[in-house]
Amino acid sequence: MATASKVIKCKAAVAWEPNKPLVIEEIEVAPPQANEIRIKMVATGVCHTDLYHLFEGMHEGGFPVVLGHEGAGIVESVGPGVTEYQTGDTVIPLFLSQCKECRFCKNPKSNHCEKGWIADRQGEMSPAESRFTCKGKKLLQFVGTSTFSEYTVVNQMAVAKIDPAAPLDKVCLLGCGICTGFGAAVNVAQVEPGSTCAVFGLGAVGLAAVMGCHFAGAKKIIAVDINPEKFEMAKVFGATDFVNPKDRSKPISEVIAEMTNGGVDFSLECVGSVGVMRSALESCVKGWGVSVIVGWTDLCDFAARPIQLIAGRTWKGALFGGFKSRDGVPQMVQSYMDKKVKLDEFITHNMPLAQVNDAIELMKNGKCIRTVLSISPQ
Amino acid sequence: MATASKVIKCKAAVAWEPNKPLVIEEIEVAPPQANEIRIKMVATGVCHTDLYHLFEGMHEGGFPVVLGHEGAGIVESVGPGVTEYQTGDTVIPLFLSQCKECRFCKNPKSNHCEKGWIADRQGEMSPAESRFTCKGKKLLQFVGTSTFSEYTVVNQMAVAKIDPAAPLDKVCLLGCGICTGFGAAVNVAQVEPGSTCAVFGLGAVGLAAVMGCHFAGAKKIIAVDINPEKFEMAKVFGATDFVNPKDRSKPISEVIAEMTNGGVDFSLECVGSVGVMRSALESCVKGWGVSVIVGWTDLCDFAARPIQLIAGRTWKGALFGGFKSRDGVPQMVQSYMDKKVKLDEFITHNMPLAQVNDAIELMKNGKCIRTVLSISPQ
Repeated sequence: MATASKVIKCKAAVAWEPNKPLVIEEIEVAPPQANEIRIKMVATGVCHTDLYHLFEGMHEGGFPVVLGHEGAGIVESVGPGVTEYQTGDTVIPLFLSQCKECRFCKNPKSNHCEKGWIADRQGEMSPAESRFTCKGKKLLQFVGTSTFSEYTVVNQMAVAKIDPAAPLDKVCLLGCGICTGFGAAVNVAQVEPGSTCAVFGLGAVGLAAVMGCHFAGAKKIIAVDINPEKFEMAKVFGATDFVNPKDRSKPISEVIAEMTNGGVDFSLECVGSVGVMRSALESCVKGWGVSVIVGWTDLCDFAARPIQLIAGRTWKGALFGGFKSRDGVPQMVQSYMDKKVKLDEFITHNMPLAQVNDAIELMKNGKCIRTVLSISPQ
Repeated sequence: MATASKVIKCKAAVAWEPNKPLVIEEIEVAPPQANEIRIKMVATGVCHTDLYHLFEGMHEGGFPVVLGHEGAGIVESVGPGVTEYQTGDTVIPLFLSQCKECRFCKNPKSNHCEKGWIADRQGEMSPAESRFTCKGKKLLQFVGTSTFSEYTVVNQMAVAKIDPAAPLDKVCLLGCGICTGFGAAVNVAQVEPGSTCAVFGLGAVGLAAVMGCHFAGAKKIIAVDINPEKFEMAKVFGATDFVNPKDRSKPISEVIAEMTNGGVDFSLECVGSVGVMRSALESCVKGWGVSVIVGWTDLCDFAARPIQLIAGRTWKGALFGGFKSRDGVPQMVQSYMDKKVKLDEFITHNMPLAQVNDAIELMKNGKCIRTVLSISPQ
């Protein structure tokens, strides 16, 4: 392309500081360096983790930053050493890398990677290197991706090449939330046919977990949320039973135990609340119950009584639904193209990138499942 | 036998109240009722759980009681409906029943049983029914067994028939501690050949866990204890590395991470301390580390940061090492007879039942691994 090897000036939504609206700015995006890929973004979802960084992760060194990590786009140009990707490829940038060489990548039990931002900067949520500047200042790249921008630069270890026929304004959601919830049920909990499940929290991740339980053949899927408006949507994804803790005087684990002869086989916490993590564990049946922590929080401890585990329960967790990122995302795109998993149904709002603050407000107030921001035509 | 159908008068160590020495008394043992087996005890180990009940489990209704749950003996007589056992069989009474009919017994993933004392009286640690009286008072039977007695009566769901050639003053240890530790490594953690392991706490259960890791083919087994006198014994069972937290200024999880390139594949908590449970989890490698809670405590919560699980670790627990009791104990007896597992090396002291209080003092002060009390000749 004519832009290759040149600095690109383009629009991006910049988070200059915590707790403030994002500002659409003209930024400079440097050409990709060795092993890097510059991507023209087509669409991006807005995820709770973006909000978490903006409103709760108020650590030093995390700003100014370009947020966004659930996007899809087209390769504009590649840096030296990139052989598997070329200009025009349709891709999804990944917050979780897959170098395919480290001991984690080589171990089928894990989707971690020793390289990439997550290994180096777990606490900081920002890459050491960024290709973004604005008004003479370096902007950080959120979790190595930064999809709230017309262009971004990502290491090739963190880019999934997908079916060129895939609609990017839909499959962008596979960059985070949907894989996280779906994979938590299918890969991490390993939900079994005929089993009973409970999913706590019916945001996009929770609904994707419901979809995963249904995909895996669960016979009873109890959807739990304090907002009963979510239940209709949960039904679309396969939920069979619905519990609003606000309607119940008993602890929710007792309610679920009564509904399931002692507790569910699998429970998934998709809220990010340590209290809900405990309820989810306690809602599992003794002997073989498995509870998976999917929701993100790390501000305080989760806890339970030792007998909960000694009685034979298992407590697990995962990033990105246990999917090895570059292997798993193209497969999930294919499953969507084959109509084995739903994506369209998660999207409650569409708007242009310029309205990113409206999208953030919708999510903050629980008024959407997913908003997709359109950035460029596909 | 001449005693069949009659009340037997015999000696037993009675715990009349918490925190007091046991008293050797003459007690009456009623004949076995339907589905029950009366056993002449030959030998019994003394386990921490006996002490836990005596010194920490000071709830109402738990006394007077006959403690002891790690014994072996010979069937004296059987009640109506017992067909699989007969007078003269060598047996190990079990605190965990296996009815072979309930949904837990039928599920290969669990060693729970819906029948037996553990299902009914988890909080109380005492069976509803007891065949013991002393001085006109009913004595409770500890966890359905009560092996600190010349005779006891146990439901057939909670009796393992074993090789008649087995030395009962050794294999009695398979009634609790050794199966608990060994099985935690082999059945619950599912330690893999070539893996790295850490075992926290080197009492009998911890040493059995070390033995289990070694049996499963672990290449590095880090034994952790604040009493370095235990290390020599741990070496006998297969430990390769030794860490005394008192000699270290860093958190033990950091020490272990440095020894193992980021943490062990498997860790086993064999202390029963919620702080150690946390350390054990944090000592596991991210991505696939599995930590198993083996030590018993239920007086307060265990806790950790959510990222510990979200990073791919698994937290498990088990009763009795995950062994289905009536199936597993005879197999473990066979493994001992075939010299595949050690038992003799756990026994540091032998004494008669009359010295049970000396045995309790030894254990309280960490001066023994296991004391075996002899009750009757085999």
